[in-house]
Amino acid sequence: MSSVILNKIKLSVFGESHGNGIGCVIDGLPAGVKLDFDKIYKDMARRAPGKDLTSTPRLEKDIPNVISGVLNDTTTGAPLAMIIENTNTQSGDYSNLMTVPRPSHSDYPAYIKYNGYNDIRGGGHFSGRLTAPIVFAGAVAKQVLMQKGITVGAHIKQIGSIKDTAFDMNNISADELNTLASKSFSAINAEAELAMRAEIEKFRLEQDSVGGIIECAAVGLPVGLGGNMFDTVESTLAPILFGIPAVKGVQFGLGFDFADKNASQVNDEYEVKDERVTLLSNNNGGVLGGMTDGAPLVFSVVIKPTPSISKPQRSVNLQTMKNETLIIRGRHDPCIVARAVPVVEAAAALGILDLMM
Amino acid sequence: MSSVILNKIKLSVFGESHGNGIGCVIDGLPAGVKLDFDKIYKDMARRAPGKDLTSTPRLEKDIPNVISGVLNDTTTGAPLAMIIENTNTQSGDYSNLMTVPRPSHSDYPAYIKYNGYNDIRGGGHFSGRLTAPIVFAGAVAKQVLMQKGITVGAHIKQIGSIKDTAFDMNNISADELNTLASKSFSAINAEAELAMRAEIEKFRLEQDSVGGIIECAAVGLPVGLGGNMFDTVESTLAPILFGIPAVKGVQFGLGFDFADKNASQVNDEYEVKDERVTLLSNNNGGVLGGMTDGAPLVFSVVIKPTPSISKPQRSVNLQTMKNETLIIRGRHDPCIVARAVPVVEAAAALGILDLMM
Amino acid sequence: MSSVILNKIKLSVFGESHGNGIGCVIDGLPAGVKLDFDKIYKDMARRAPGKDLTSTPRLEKDIPNVISGVLNDTTTGAPLAMIIENTNTQSGDYSNLMTVPRPSHSDYPAYIKYNGYNDIRGGGHFSGRLTAPIVFAGAVAKQVLMQKGITVGAHIKQIGSIKDTAFDMNNISADELNTLASKSFSAINAEAELAMRAEIEKFRLEQDSVGGIIECAAVGLPVGLGGNMFDTVESTLAPILFGIPAVKGVQFGLGFDFADKNASQVNDEYEVKDERVTLLSNNNGGVLGGMTDGAPLVFSVVIKPTPSISKPQRSVNLQTMKNETLIIRGRHDPCIVARAVPVVEAAAALGILDLMM
Amino acid sequence: MSSVILNKIKLSVFGESHGNGIGCVIDGLPAGVKLDFDKIYKDMARRAPGKDLTSTPRLEKDIPNVISGVLNDTTTGAPLAMIIENTNTQSGDYSNLMTVPRPSHSDYPAYIKYNGYNDIRGGGHFSGRLTAPIVFAGAVAKQVLMQKGITVGAHIKQIGSIKDTAFDMNNISADELNTLASKSFSAINAEAELAMRAEIEKFRLEQDSVGGIIECAAVGLPVGLGGNMFDTVESTLAPILFGIPAVKGVQFGLGFDFADKNASQVNDEYEVKDERVTLLSNNNGGVLGGMTDGAPLVFSVVIKPTPSISKPQRSVNLQTMKNETLIIRGRHDPCIVARAVPVVEAAAALGILDLMM
Repeated sequence: MSSVILNKIKLSVFGESHGNGIGCVIDGLPAGVKLDFDKIYKDMARRAPGKDLTSTPRLEKDIPNVISGVLNDTTTGAPLAMIIENTNTQSGDYSNLMTVPRPSHSDYPAYIKYNGYNDIRGGGHFSGRLTAPIVFAGAVAKQVLMQKGITVGAHIKQIGSIKDTAFDMNNISADELNTLASKSFSAINAEAELAMRAEIEKFRLEQDSVGGIIECAAVGLPVGLGGNMFDTVESTLAPILFGIPAVKGVQFGLGFDFADKNASQVNDEYEVKDERVTLLSNNNGGVLGGMTDGAPLVFSVVIKPTPSISKPQRSVNLQTMKNETLIIRGRHDPCIVARAVPVVEAAAALGILDLMM
Repeated sequence: MSSVILNKIKLSVFGESHGNGIGCVIDGLPAGVKLDFDKIYKDMARRAPGKDLTSTPRLEKDIPNVISGVLNDTTTGAPLAMIIENTNTQSGDYSNLMTVPRPSHSDYPAYIKYNGYNDIRGGGHFSGRLTAPIVFAGAVAKQVLMQKGITVGAHIKQIGSIKDTAFDMNNISADELNTLASKSFSAINAEAELAMRAEIEKFRLEQDSVGGIIECAAVGLPVGLGGNMFDTVESTLAPILFGIPAVKGVQFGLGFDFADKNASQVNDEYEVKDERVTLLSNNNGGVLGGMTDGAPLVFSVVIKPTPSISKPQRSVNLQTMKNETLIIRGRHDPCIVARAVPVVEAAAALGILDLMM
Repeated sequence: MSSVILNKIKLSVFGESHGNGIGCVIDGLPAGVKLDFDKIYKDMARRAPGKDLTSTPRLEKDIPNVISGVLNDTTTGAPLAMIIENTNTQSGDYSNLMTVPRPSHSDYPAYIKYNGYNDIRGGGHFSGRLTAPIVFAGAVAKQVLMQKGITVGAHIKQIGSIKDTAFDMNNISADELNTLASKSFSAINAEAELAMRAEIEKFRLEQDSVGGIIECAAVGLPVGLGGNMFDTVESTLAPILFGIPAVKGVQFGLGFDFADKNASQVNDEYEVKDERVTLLSNNNGGVLGGMTDGAPLVFSVVIKPTPSISKPQRSVNLQTMKNETLIIRGRHDPCIVARAVPVVEAAAALGILDLMM
Repeated sequence: MSSVILNKIKLSVFGESHGNGIGCVIDGLPAGVKLDFDKIYKDMARRAPGKDLTSTPRLEKDIPNVISGVLNDTTTGAPLAMIIENTNTQSGDYSNLMTVPRPSHSDYPAYIKYNGYNDIRGGGHFSGRLTAPIVFAGAVAKQVLMQKGITVGAHIKQIGSIKDTAFDMNNISADELNTLASKSFSAINAEAELAMRAEIEKFRLEQDSVGGIIECAAVGLPVGLGGNMFDTVESTLAPILFGIPAVKGVQFGLGFDFADKNASQVNDEYEVKDERVTLLSNNNGGVLGGMTDGAPLVFSVVIKPTPSISKPQRSVNLQTMKNETLIIRGRHDPCIVARAVPVVEAAAALGILDLMM
C-alpha cells in the first residue's frame, strides 16, 4: 500500500482531491541542476483541465509551491518537496459516507480496502488530480535528463476510431519530441488532430466518454541502460505508468502487434553507419533484453474511457445492499487522453532518470 | 542492475545458460506450507523444451535441487533456495568473444553494458533458460495461494493469425484454470489448438518463428488487494512479467481494446446477487484503481517471435566494425508461446503472493 | 542519497533549516486510526528548543499542518503528509557560500558531496531541526501502536558523568514509559535529574557542550516480531536511529557491556510463570536472533556533544585553502540529549510499527 | 522476514545449519572484476572453526562452489551465486521438535514465529554457520573495493577484561589493515593477543564463554560517501552488522564514549596539510552528518558471549509447559570473537561497496 516508487531516486506522491493539498517529494536528485520553472508550469498547464471543450470546464489553479530542495532555482541535493494547496476545500466535518460506488472507478474496492475510512470526496487519493504532482516531478526529471542530452515526448496515437500518424520508430528527433511536448493537444498529424477533436466532441454531446492510446518516445539514451532480469527498462517504466489512473496496458515497440508477426519480418537487423552500430528498424522500441539498444525508446499506453459519465448506470447501495440506479452529476472529461500526455511523459522521464542515476 | 524482485517476498534469480547452474532464492515465504513437489515438477516440465515439434528438440533435464527452506516437504520460513545444475557444461577456459550480435537479442546492448565480460554462451543470464527458476518459484507460490483459495491459470490466446476462444472474463472457474494449467499446450478450444499447432509448424518449416499472446487469470482473490498509487496490482505484476524474455506488452482486461471503446459500452456496472456485490461485466480485468474488485483478475502479455532463426540476417562484426551476414545454426523454437504459459502463470502467482503477504 | 526509510510503511522526510518549510510523508499507514493531535503536539513540544536553560533560547513555533491522509482526525489510508512552514525565512537571493566548515558538523563532507550547491543556512537538510518531522511521524506511529497495546518511552540514561537510574530491563511497565514520555526532561530519578541539569549548566557557562546516552524501551510487543537475517528488530531500528543527527552508537540490552561478561552471568534463562514462558533476566534487551522474545525491548543510543560551541576552533577556508580560526556566534544547545529523547522514541515507534505491519 | 539486504547491490543469504547447503547470491556486482579466489578462501578459513583451542574443534570443510556470475575468474555482471554443500547431513525424516529452548538463543522466539516449522537442527537459518556466505560475499566485495583503492580490516579490541591496543583512529594505513586481515587471531598488540588467548582458555576450562569487541576500519574512501538522512554510512552498515548473530551494539568513532565528553575535547578540527583538508583528530570515526569526511572510517561492534555453554541452565519445556534444567552437550566456542572478525570485515566491505555503486 504505497504511493512511493522508484529506486535510486524516490518519488513520494501525497494528497487527496478535496483535502488540504496535493504534492510530492522527489528524493535523490543530483545537486546543482538549474531548473527552469516556466517549463515546469507549462507541463502542468498541459495537464490542467478547462483548456477547451475536450476536457472538463472545472478550473484548477495549481500553483506548485516548492518547499525544499531548491535554492536560487537550483537543486540542493536535498529532497525536493512541492505542495499545491487545494484552495476550494470546505471546512467543517464531512460525512464520509460512500453509498453507491461509481462503476469502473476505485470506489468499491477502496471502500472494502479502507473499511470506509478513505476520503472519497472527488476520488480522494485515487483522483486523477493526483497526476499533477507526477507531472511536476516529471518536468523536473526532464530538465535533469536534458543536461544529459536526453529528450522525452509523446503524442496521442489514437482516440476512439481515429489514429494519428505513428512515430517513425527508428527515426525520431529531439526537435520532434520537443514540439509535441509543447502542445496542449499533442498530435503529429494536423488533420488527425481535427478528427480526434471531433470524435471527442461527439462523445461529449452523447454524455459519454472515449478511450485512446498515447505513444511516447525518448532519444539520446546511452546503449546498455537497464539490464539484468528485473531491473530492466520495461520493469522500471511499467509500474510508474500503471500508477497513472486509467492506464490499462503498456507495450514497447510493436507491442501487441508482435503477436501475428514472424521473426524474419520484425527482427531489428544491424549495420555499421558512420563507424557506429545502428539498427535497420526499431520494432523492439529501443529495448532488447531489457536494455536500451541505441534506437529511440518507444512505448505506448492505453487509456480507458473516463468512467464518470452522466448516463444512468446500474450500481448498488453498499449500506442497504440494494440495487440502485446511479446518475453522476457535474461535468466530466469526455476524453482524458490529451491531458494524460504530459503525465505519460513525466512517468517516462522519472523512470529514465532512475535508470540513469 | 538487478535480478531480484518483489517486496514482501523477494525472488532472486541467478545463473547463466552454460554456466554451472541456474536457480533462485525465494525469501519471505510463510513457514508451515506443505509442498507437493510432483506438481512443481509438472509445471517445470510444461516449460521444458523438446516436448514436441512446436518447440526446440534440445533436451533439458532440469532437476531442481532444493538447498534450504524446506524440511519434510514443508516450508521452514527460511529462504527457499533451489539450484538446477547444468550437466552439459564443458570445463576449461572459454574464449568469451562476441563478434556478431544476433538481431533482436540482448547480445549487442549486453556487450556494451558489460564491456564484453558477460557470459554470452547461450545468451548467458539473458537466456530463456533462466525462466526455469521462475517457474519453480511460481509453482511454490501457487501452492501457498491454493491454501488461501486462489487459483491461477493461463492459455494461449493467439499465435500468429490464429486465436483461441478468449476467457469469459466475468465467469472463470478454478476448475477451468486448473485444467489449463495442467496442459503442455494450453488452449481452451481444441480446434484452435490444432490450427495454432499448424501455424507453428508452418513457420518451423520456413525456418522462421512466430509470436503470440498469453491470457492469464486468477480467481479467489479478496476484494481490495493492491492499492494506493504505485503499489497496485498492475504495478506489482508488470515488472515481473516484463522480466520474462520476449514479453513486449502487458495489459489488463480489455487492455489496448479500450482505445476505441466508450464508457457506456465498457463500464463494469454492479448488482447485488446472493447478498453480495457482483460485477455485471469484467472489462477491467478485475482491477479498479489498482485494487482487486472481486471479479477474476485477467491480464494478457504479448510474446514476440523468437529472434533466433536460421535465415540469413544482416548484422555487424563488433571487433572489425564491418557489416556481416549472420546465419544462426542449430535448431530453434519456432514459437516460444506454449512454453511461456507456465512462466506467465508463475509470474502472476508470485506477484499475487507478494500482494497477499 | 535518500531521506526515505522503512519498508512496509515508508517515511519520507524533507526540508531545509532555513528554507520554506520542513515536513514528512508517512506512506502505508492503516486506515481508520483516530489520532489525538494534542498528544502529537506535546511530543513536538518536548523536542522544541527554548524550554529552559538546558537548551537553546531560539524560539520555534512549529505548527504541523496536515495536508493529507487524515479526515475527521482519522487516518484515511492515503499517505499522511505534514508540513511545518518556516516563518522566519528571508526572501531574496542568498549567497550560498560555505567558506569555513564547522568542526564535527556535516559542513565539509556536504560541501564536497553536493559540490557547493547544498543549502548550508542553519545546516540545511542536515539540521537537527529536521528531527521535528520525525517526532511528528513517531507520535502518529505511537498512537497506531497504542491501539495494539504497545507503549514506547525513553529516558536520559547519562549526561556527562551523571547517570540516571537505569531501566530494570525485565520489569518495565507501560505506565512508567508513559510517565517518562510526558516529561520535557525525561529522567527516572529526580536527584539524577537535578545533577544532570547542573552538569549541563556547567558546560553552558563554559561555552562548551556535553554528550549523553538515551535508553528507550517498548512493552506489549508480541513474541517473534522481526526475524530472519537482515529483517531483524535491530536491523530495522538501527538505520532510523542512526538517521538522527549526533547519534554515534546503538546497542541493545547490555550492549557494549557484554564485552567483559561471560555467558553464565548474562544468559537470559526461562521459567514458566502463570502458564506463560517468561525470562528470568533481560540482558538481551528483549531481542534474540533478531526477534522479540516477550521481554521489554530495551536499547540505548549515544548522543555526541553538540559540535556548535562558542570557543575558538581550528578550521580551514575552503576557498583560499588557508588555515583559519573559527568562532561560531549565536547561542547553542549546551546539551541536545533531553530534546533528543522524543526523537529516539519516535524512531523506535516508527521502526516497531514497520515490523508490525 | 528477509535475508536479503543492501540497495544497489543486493545480498541474499540462504541455508540452514544442517540442511543441504548454505550460500548466497550477490546481485548487482560490476562486470569485469578479476577475482583472486585464494584470498577468498583465506578469509573463509579465518572464520572456520577448529583452528585452535580458542574455537570449537568441529571441522567444517566449507568449499564454496560458484554457480554463476564468474567466468574465467572474472565477474560477468550477472548475479554471483555460491553454494557450500553440507556434506555431513543425515538423510531420512527428522522429528523437528523443539522442546527446551536454549537460553539467549533464537530458539524460543523462532518457535513462536515459525509455529514450530523452522529447521531447528543446529540453529537452522539462525546458525552462526550462515556467516560463511557473508564472509564469502565480503571477500568478493573487498576485491572490488581494492580496485578502487579501498582497504578494510579489523582487530579484536577487547575480550573479557583484556584490551588490545586501539586503532590510532586518525592514522591507519592500508598495510596495517591488510596485516590484520591476514591473521586468524587479529590483534595489534602481541602481548594483548597472548592475554586474550589466556582469557579465552580460562573460560573454556570453566565450560563458560566470554564476549568481546571488534574494531574495524576502512581507508581510501572518498569524501562525501553516504549522505542525506537515512542513506548514511551508519544506516547502511548498521543493519548488515546487526544481521551478524551475537552482535548487540554498533558504534562509530568514540561511540558510547562520547557520553561523558565535551565538545571542546572531542570536536575534530581541520587544517590544511599538503594543500589538502585534513582532520586533526578522528573521534567521529570518519563519518560526519552520515558522510565520509576523509579520515579513516572506524567503527566497533560488541559480540555477546556465546550462549551455548555446558553448565546447567534453567529453561522450560514448550510442550509440557514445565520448568526444566537444560544441559547443552557437545563442544562449543568459548569465544566467538576471533572468528567473527572476518565477518565484520565482510559486512563492512559489502556496505561500503553498496555506498560506492
